Amino acid sequence: MRLARLGPSGAEVPTVVVDGTYLDLRPITDDIGPAFLASNGIERVAAAVAADSLQPLAGAADLRIGAPISRPGKIVCIGLNYRDHAAETGAAIPTEPVVFMKDPCTVVGPFDTVLIPRRSAKTDWEVELGVVIGRAARYLETPADALACVAGYLVSHDVSEREFQLERGGQWDKGKSCETFNPVGPELVTADEVGDPQDLRLNLSVNGVRRQDGTTADMVFPVDHVIWYLSQFMVLQPGDLINTGTPAGVAMGLAGQPYLRAGDVVELGITGLGTARQPIGQA
Amino acid sequence: MRLARLGPSGAEVPTVVVDGTYLDLRPITDDIGPAFLASNGIERVAAAVAADSLQPLAGAADLRIGAPISRPGKIVCIGLNYRDHAAETGAAIPTEPVVFMKDPCTVVGPFDTVLIPRRSAKTDWEVELGVVIGRAARYLETPADALACVAGYLVSHDVSEREFQLERGGQWDKGKSCETFNPVGPELVTADEVGDPQDLRLNLSVNGVRRQDGTTADMVFPVDHVIWYLSQFMVLQPGDLINTGTPAGVAMGLAGQPYLRAGDVVELGITGLGTARQPIGQA
Repeated sequence: MRLARLGPSGAEVPTVVVDGTYLDLRPITDDIGPAFLASNGIERVAAAVAADSLQPLAGAADLRIGAPISRPGKIVCIGLNYRDHAAETGAAIPTEPVVFMKDPCTVVGPFDTVLIPRRSAKTDWEVELGVVIGRAARYLETPADALACVAGYLVSHDVSEREFQLERGGQWDKGKSCETFNPVGPELVTADEVGDPQDLRLNLSVNGVRRQDGTTADMVFPVDHVIWYLSQFMVLQPGDLINTGTPAGVAMGLAGQPYLRAGDVVELGITGLGTARQPIGQA
Repeated sequence: MRLARLGPSGAEVPTVVVDGTYLDLRPITDDIGPAFLASNGIERVAAAVAADSLQPLAGAADLRIGAPISRPGKIVCIGLNYRDHAAETGAAIPTEPVVFMKDPCTVVGPFDTVLIPRRSAKTDWEVELGVVIGRAARYLETPADALACVAGYLVSHDVSEREFQLERGGQWDKGKSCETFNPVGPELVTADEVGDPQDLRLNLSVNGVRRQDGTTADMVFPVDHVIWYLSQFMVLQPGDLINTGTPAGVAMGLAGQPYLRAGDVVELGITGLGTARQPIGQA
């Protein structure tokens, strides 16, 4: 299934997309987020779809497409998780996952404006496979237990300010948590519909020029390993978002380092998860 | 005022403590958290206290004291923010704040058990002044604008696993986000009652042995600077928690590195904010 949230920011209506029609999920849930996922929400939606009991959302075509999930409890990110991206940044291939976090309030919709932070000169793009947790994961025994904890996948844009991240002292989070720095969507596609998360192509273009074109087959640590690994260090909860890393082609690694500027347009997509398009503005 | 939450984890009742009596805040709010703080909750409580309209919470003395705030939207931490602590860890005094994050679901009550993670050998303590945001802070012009954004202060224990933090690749967050790693409380003390946040003593003992004894006067970057600085990189929202760093005396910096073990007891406190006591268990 494909879940989406339509309407103004902060007042999105939960829907399921069936044959291109947005069906209103408000008889089942107020929102698509941690509480929904923790209470078998996806199963309840599937039952309602099977029973043909949902109604189309009136005026859906005129509504903003929001993030397909409400604010996560946390956003955990894996750094340098594609060999070619590690190489372009001059970093070694990690021997175990590099973990950092983003502020959960950076989540915005897939067509919302991304704001260049004030005093930023190095705002960069990163298309990533986003994993949304559906079942708590705590000290999983093996990676084989991990994918059962996934609710679904989505297109995630891990926008990054490289000077803030790398040149301002200490830890990366400072360059990862700026306002609007994590557009997600357009849809949360349930795990059953995605199939193998290691067989998806990711791409990203800026102003029509293709910049990233990779495959999740090239991850250093695949999704099941990442979830298993994280569960040894923290408890993953329903609604948490994991950004699983980006392939090569970010501005930092390109000749001339063509960082984002107000007026640019970023388009990104992943096989089966849809495409997103974000105009770039100035904070 | 002093706010507290009493009752079982996940079902705490919001209260205000007046002359040692816990007054039930449920006529005013379901909880003490982001929504309460964003809707002038503290002002509404003050009005109710002034009107003498609140009733004591029955059986309060028998209830668990929970964290005085519900789960924050984010937890932002400042590293190496006391000169003596930077020195004991072998780090340079930072020239600008070192920023990292903790998983918001690490928050537990002030008397709850802290769990040593599985496969941990280096679980360490850190008493910190916790700052709870009451008003959104975004691109503040100067540090002089910052303290108006503070709802209140609390005792915060930034429990840290040093091997996970420093020896497992990359970023610190991995050693900061383990289950139960952020006890807070016993009370959220409103900013007006605390006065100058740079004139508070912090202390921490393990099994009755005093290990940390510092003053917030020794912060490298005081609270107002920290809030102003963070607001240049992210939007601070009502309910967010900032851990402002720890003074010297952590296990990592002591002779013999006496890291925490199951069965230990940690006691910590800050002038005017109360004391907390956490038994140490094993995950």
